[in-house]
Amino acid sequence: MSRRSPSVPELVARARDRDARSVARLISLVEDASPLLREVAALLTPHTGKAHVVGITGSPGVGKSTSTSALVTALRAQGKRVGVLAVDPSSPFSGGALLGDRVRMQEHATDRDVYIRSMATRGHLGGLSWATPQALRVLDAAGCDVILVETVGVGQSEIEVAGQADTTLVLLAPGMGDGIQAAKAGILEVGDLFVINKADRDGADQTRRELRSMLALAPAGQGAWRQPIVKTVAVKGDGIDEVAARIEVHREWMERSGELTVRRRRRVRDEIETIAVTAVRARFSHLSGDERLDGLAEQVLAGDTDPFRAADTLIEAI
Amino acid sequence: MSRRSPSVPELVARARDRDARSVARLISLVEDASPLLREVAALLTPHTGKAHVVGITGSPGVGKSTSTSALVTALRAQGKRVGVLAVDPSSPFSGGALLGDRVRMQEHATDRDVYIRSMATRGHLGGLSWATPQALRVLDAAGCDVILVETVGVGQSEIEVAGQADTTLVLLAPGMGDGIQAAKAGILEVGDLFVINKADRDGADQTRRELRSMLALAPAGQGAWRQPIVKTVAVKGDGIDEVAARIEVHREWMERSGELTVRRRRRVRDEIETIAVTAVRARFSHLSGDERLDGLAEQVLAGDTDPFRAADTLIEAI
Repeated sequence: MSRRSPSVPELVARARDRDARSVARLISLVEDASPLLREVAALLTPHTGKAHVVGITGSPGVGKSTSTSALVTALRAQGKRVGVLAVDPSSPFSGGALLGDRVRMQEHATDRDVYIRSMATRGHLGGLSWATPQALRVLDAAGCDVILVETVGVGQSEIEVAGQADTTLVLLAPGMGDGIQAAKAGILEVGDLFVINKADRDGADQTRRELRSMLALAPAGQGAWRQPIVKTVAVKGDGIDEVAARIEVHREWMERSGELTVRRRRRVRDEIETIAVTAVRARFSHLSGDERLDGLAEQVLAGDTDPFRAADTLIEAI
Repeated sequence: MSRRSPSVPELVARARDRDARSVARLISLVEDASPLLREVAALLTPHTGKAHVVGITGSPGVGKSTSTSALVTALRAQGKRVGVLAVDPSSPFSGGALLGDRVRMQEHATDRDVYIRSMATRGHLGGLSWATPQALRVLDAAGCDVILVETVGVGQSEIEVAGQADTTLVLLAPGMGDGIQAAKAGILEVGDLFVINKADRDGADQTRRELRSMLALAPAGQGAWRQPIVKTVAVKGDGIDEVAARIEVHREWMERSGELTVRRRRRVRDEIETIAVTAVRARFSHLSGDERLDGLAEQVLAGDTDPFRAADTLIEAI
């Protein structure tokens, strides 16, 4: 018997019925920038907007994976359906399987209401900012109440990912000078909630004081969100319920203040812009096979025109 | 007395007369993506194409800065006018001054026929691939016979820079396993000439053998360039004349084989494409202040459209 592979509408219908295999298949389509991507997005979009997207970031060694896993446990205890998207901007590897240190997630692997996915976006057309929102849309449409987006490392790409979340958690650990350093490098602005993990170690209070004084320097308007600092020991589960509670408080504040709409609108604007730029870039790349671009290059090399005028001609050509 | 700042045509004329201050000012305009950039490129392009662009890359610690400086000495002894462009893709700092380990360049600082410039491109519109060709054009028009483009570190950006050179030198050092590792990661393909610096240390011959056998694996057609391996001790100047001679041999081969035209055409094609994509992106960004993009985002959030269709609308709008 031949097994026909399901159509996109079928996959979307099944994913909405929480079929894990269809969710996985849709994320793969998204990740591979499949030609079916447009159809996927068109069918999914009407069913999105319900999930609360929580970004989790922090330097290597602060316990992101352990904290994410502990948070999944806490959210499951509240009866919430949870998606986990582990994004590694530097890795060329990906897949639906549990990868590397994702091993801590294995306790959730058999839970039908937890969907865990690793995603790598290196070398992809449009990169991280392209693939992540599409994958979030799949998990959102599949009925996740909360989606935890965990990024690897702290860098510009991670800050970008964090910027796509409704709520962003920044993890630190005591005695990691680099934790605070990272905080200085843009993380301070994107963090809605700071977690000092491994708080049973020396220096947790010191880290908290330093962080608090740095946060105090940032200007805060009337009714602005005051970023809480929570101490946790994720391996023991200590403090995790408080983190979950604070996430919920932040969500409520976001809705009340209108900030949720502001952020989501900005997120979708960025997404539309990225798709548009990628589409235009693809058209240029298509022209690369064209003699026209060769001709323009020859003219520049001969000194008959300059690259800016040549670019104008190229833009007019598409 | 008021001092009018010189116009772009004046700056270009003076730069062509080898006025260092005007060269510096033009590179700053390029680096800052000044609105005058188009005018700069239009006036410079007819006067370019003479300089031989030599990319110098390699892992930190192999002695890139020392080798570059020694090479400047060797080229100066041949009576050549030399430009040095030190590109740091990760640094937000730049300027005409000698920076950090550029201190070794100071012996050339008073030489009127050596132009040294550090350039950082992080965060710039279009990034490295945008700013470097423009800066090369300035140095080319200013009468440099050879331009050495030294990059910091080995990574994708460095390989990109190397790709913009007529001749690419890859520096290694004995006993640096990572040197060969880096070679594996794309550097092997871009290297036209390999230099094993610090060749008075143990393991130089071993490194040479390993490299030779790796290079032997790469397919080479009839009349193809056979990448030479030169051993140097740059701090003493040993082997540097041979490197300079090999660079010249490569240039002659490039001209004879037609490869020079092929590479330069590809380089200009890439440049035109980058400028065109950047221009289109700028138009989208301009639209960000526009209510149209907000409106499209609202429609996506409401589920009335999807981001791909919204992007189509955006593209039609420009």
